[in-house]
Amino acid sequence: MRKVEVVYRPFEKVTRVPEGTTLFNAAHWIGLPIESTCGGRGTCGKCKVRVDEGEFEITPADRRHLTDVELEQGWHLACEAELLGDAACFVPELMGVPKAATMGVSRFVLLEPNVNKVHLTLPTPTLEDTRSDIERLRDELDREGYGVVADLRALRHLPVALRRADFDVTAVLCGEHLVAVEPGDTAGVSYGIALDVGTTTVVATLMDLSGGGAAAVASNLNGQAPFGADVISRIGRTRTDETAAAELQRTVVETINGLLADVYARAGVERDHVYEMVVAGNATMLHLLLAVDPHAIAMAPFIPAFREPLDVPAEALGIEIHPEGRVQLLPSIGAYVGADIVAGIQATGLTREPELRLFVDVGTNGEIVLGSSDRVLASAAPAGPAFEGGHIRCGMRAADGAIEGVTLTDGSVELQVIGNAPERGICGSGLIDAVAQLRLIGLLDAKGRLAAPADVPGHPLADRLAEVNGTRAFVLEGDIVLTQKDVRELQSAKAAIATGIDALMDAMGVRASDLHEVLLAGSFGTYINPASARIIGLVPPVPVERIKAVGNAAGEGAKMALVSFREREMAFDLPRRVEYVELSGRPDFNEAFLTAVAFPELEPLP
Amino acid sequence: MRKVEVVYRPFEKVTRVPEGTTLFNAAHWIGLPIESTCGGRGTCGKCKVRVDEGEFEITPADRRHLTDVELEQGWHLACEAELLGDAACFVPELMGVPKAATMGVSRFVLLEPNVNKVHLTLPTPTLEDTRSDIERLRDELDREGYGVVADLRALRHLPVALRRADFDVTAVLCGEHLVAVEPGDTAGVSYGIALDVGTTTVVATLMDLSGGGAAAVASNLNGQAPFGADVISRIGRTRTDETAAAELQRTVVETINGLLADVYARAGVERDHVYEMVVAGNATMLHLLLAVDPHAIAMAPFIPAFREPLDVPAEALGIEIHPEGRVQLLPSIGAYVGADIVAGIQATGLTREPELRLFVDVGTNGEIVLGSSDRVLASAAPAGPAFEGGHIRCGMRAADGAIEGVTLTDGSVELQVIGNAPERGICGSGLIDAVAQLRLIGLLDAKGRLAAPADVPGHPLADRLAEVNGTRAFVLEGDIVLTQKDVRELQSAKAAIATGIDALMDAMGVRASDLHEVLLAGSFGTYINPASARIIGLVPPVPVERIKAVGNAAGEGAKMALVSFREREMAFDLPRRVEYVELSGRPDFNEAFLTAVAFPELEPLP
Repeated sequence: MRKVEVVYRPFEKVTRVPEGTTLFNAAHWIGLPIESTCGGRGTCGKCKVRVDEGEFEITPADRRHLTDVELEQGWHLACEAELLGDAACFVPELMGVPKAATMGVSRFVLLEPNVNKVHLTLPTPTLEDTRSDIERLRDELDREGYGVVADLRALRHLPVALRRADFDVTAVLCGEHLVAVEPGDTAGVSYGIALDVGTTTVVATLMDLSGGGAAAVASNLNGQAPFGADVISRIGRTRTDETAAAELQRTVVETINGLLADVYARAGVERDHVYEMVVAGNATMLHLLLAVDPHAIAMAPFIPAFREPLDVPAEALGIEIHPEGRVQLLPSIGAYVGADIVAGIQATGLTREPELRLFVDVGTNGEIVLGSSDRVLASAAPAGPAFEGGHIRCGMRAADGAIEGVTLTDGSVELQVIGNAPERGICGSGLIDAVAQLRLIGLLDAKGRLAAPADVPGHPLADRLAEVNGTRAFVLEGDIVLTQKDVRELQSAKAAIATGIDALMDAMGVRASDLHEVLLAGSFGTYINPASARIIGLVPPVPVERIKAVGNAAGEGAKMALVSFREREMAFDLPRRVEYVELSGRPDFNEAFLTAVAFPELEPLP
Repeated sequence: MRKVEVVYRPFEKVTRVPEGTTLFNAAHWIGLPIESTCGGRGTCGKCKVRVDEGEFEITPADRRHLTDVELEQGWHLACEAELLGDAACFVPELMGVPKAATMGVSRFVLLEPNVNKVHLTLPTPTLEDTRSDIERLRDELDREGYGVVADLRALRHLPVALRRADFDVTAVLCGEHLVAVEPGDTAGVSYGIALDVGTTTVVATLMDLSGGGAAAVASNLNGQAPFGADVISRIGRTRTDETAAAELQRTVVETINGLLADVYARAGVERDHVYEMVVAGNATMLHLLLAVDPHAIAMAPFIPAFREPLDVPAEALGIEIHPEGRVQLLPSIGAYVGADIVAGIQATGLTREPELRLFVDVGTNGEIVLGSSDRVLASAAPAGPAFEGGHIRCGMRAADGAIEGVTLTDGSVELQVIGNAPERGICGSGLIDAVAQLRLIGLLDAKGRLAAPADVPGHPLADRLAEVNGTRAFVLEGDIVLTQKDVRELQSAKAAIATGIDALMDAMGVRASDLHEVLLAGSFGTYINPASARIIGLVPPVPVERIKAVGNAAGEGAKMALVSFREREMAFDLPRRVEYVELSGRPDFNEAFLTAVAFPELEPLP
């Protein structure tokens, strides 16, 4: 499956998605605001974009909703426009105030944010009505159906705020917390941040809570990277150095505040209008965001300090939203199935539909969720760094110059390289592709043994087989080779995930044929070729069209929880609903793992 | 009524109280720890003290509870030992762990603090039991009947705290807030602070929450004094200077922290074992303690920002108890009937007994409460500074050299002076005494006019009548005189209070003869001669023995709320139960006030 590149203007935001993705979904995955109220069903006609480069069919929905002039100018409904090649399109500013939005994996989310702005005209105090300022406000909010708890700082400014505005004010509530009292009617101006704190990358989306759309999005490397690439090495720092947790906290908050400044500037939004942040991330990232000691996460039996959806004042963390704003963490299921996975489950609606689905977030720690509205199981599999290019001879992260796709055909080696730069190495998706293709053309056996030239006389690619430092290898391009050891590393990594998947399927008593869909999450999941994933046995043998990349599901789940307190409450409820299956305690784990190291027998792809 | 001085050893704490006060009550009024479980009824026999100086009768209770040797050595039960002259006594260290204590105005308070320390041996985590640290703790606390909310800082230290102590810990809860997790069993070590933030004086009492007694007490002038002597002038500063509220906050917190360091040192208690502070104070003092803008309190219609019993983290205020400790404010009834009066009501049990009582806190702002378990009314009367020596020619605060008592007999002027120092001026209680005595010996008429020598030929004190700067005066001693204008100032001040009392009695439809007791509160109330108060008409005409000084009732109420959450909840409920009567809005106020300016006709004292 080919990846295509699309540019959204005027933001000049670029993304790469699997061929066939709609312009609407591709934009959603990167948090771009395209208007919609129907949830991408082609019925509201609001998601129109003007195609500047690339070819799209004119769909029946386009004909229903767009004028002849618009069609001639290249306008399409984004929710129906499938990307068949690279493209560029222009996205209009949000026009109306949609009271619902499509988010997550085509989820239709009603706009019911936890942040409420309530315009009030309070009765002026008299000698007969000497209620205190906060009681006056509370009584009126109570009449409107809102409870309120006065936080200290809001209270400090309340007397002046009420009197300067002549008791005509807008109360800002985060849940029951009174965050601010603004003069006049500002009910229409309300923003929040959906934050995805990844070990590698942090993504902040500024969401317009009045409209439900994204106003701006920014991402950056997690500033904690110098403390270690993965969660275990970062936790390690906190074990030897008591100040490390606080330092790691400051570091990631610096990253976050940088992103906030960026999205505020780009959307022209004031910090004081941003009242809440919802955070998804793995359990370690959430511990470090709060400066809560994470060290017990890294040692058996792997215990987090907390899993619950904590709600803390932004000020206590130094996070630069409204000074009285709140930071709401999503809950975790366990030490290695964190709030990122909870958000992902929420984004996919996995627990809300009757069809059985498998959700896999492939990475150093692979997280696996299997379930439906009936029952949900989850587990974590320690895959190791191979999927991120670690321990691979020519491995690298998915950056410019990385081979991210490999096609081996009659005598030719076709490479897809990120950024049209000279090849510098191979990243996870390229590795999976390369191994799958080698299997297909008969240069790799089911046990994972690379052929030697002598084994395959006359094979059109036999000349690519080489020996590097005494081990067999396949030459992709120049110095860039795939060694026998690299294949073994990949086998171990995929076996860890596959064993986890098998354990969950066993526990639920289902087979591959029962799976309605296999969802690959995370930025890495987006780039994996589903066919290749199946060929190497990373995912169960289901028809390839049932294997779907769902993009940054964690970030999407955070957005859903931000714009909808109902979605949030459902997310809060997930840890209770999801049964965690601990793999490391299972007596049959090692045997199952060794079996899963082999590749499946080849079968014709549909 | 004479005041006597008593010294408590080994604390070397000195107090002056009305003759006839028991050693037990006198100690209680200054927060000294004398053991008791019976509530001062002479039945438990625990409150024994050794008299070193002064004379006390041996009571039947002494004979019941003390041995002959003890009687010979001068031991007495403090609750029965009435002070008839200056005295000094030795108070033993608290011996047992009383589960109840006598506090407030002879209130028997069961020891049920809001702070709970719970020793727990938690199950060690395993791969089968991977609950998070906080869930593990919460489940166990839940089993013991405690709910818990994890505050951020407690959570930060939780993983290390649990593992260093091998999961054998003591959880410290302030209500539902998890304040600390201490290694091992520390359930017996628990302290809190009862704080009375007066406009003039701040008193901190370190209470042993295991025993219910006071471990140490300290008082100091409120460091805000340079910003103005009364609440109005301090509020004035916040109106012209936006940073003033924060500065006043820092200043009073400095005063408080000084007192805390003092009581910790004297009792040998660590700051980290002091988990909660309960605060009584007038509404302005509470606003300034929180740095909440108080300016609307000083302008009609006199609106506080809050009246409710706020509970804030000590750290947010910079108050140096346990860093995760809580500061609980008592609620206020109105802008000028604050949490000090709520605490006072609680300390007297006024709302809990069927007898009708009148509670008066005499000061610049006089607060008046009238009621019983049936119904309670409250009001505030702006008396002005006369009671504190303000606007009085030779007036001064109650300090060394102040005339605090005056007796005029056949030709002689007998003065009681604070500190056995040379007379420097006259304080409020001396002023009231002087005016009352002048009435009694016929040198002041009912309208408040001082006699001229010519009006009273042959009066034995006629030679004390003089003219100073053209107005009549009475010479107390040397230069120290009481002028006609001073009498007028006192008349205005007492009329304000008396008018308020009348308004409440009218509203309730009761007369002086219905009053079971008149309680005079505050440090000033303690020193007023009840007979004089009645003669000048400051209080209604009830038999003198029904007029009682109740000492620092605000501080006592705070102590009660600290050691007993039941008392606290009753205090929280008071604003709802007390009907506030606003005087300044009453059309008949001016007329009533003018009537009250006159002195009552003299009648024989019983």
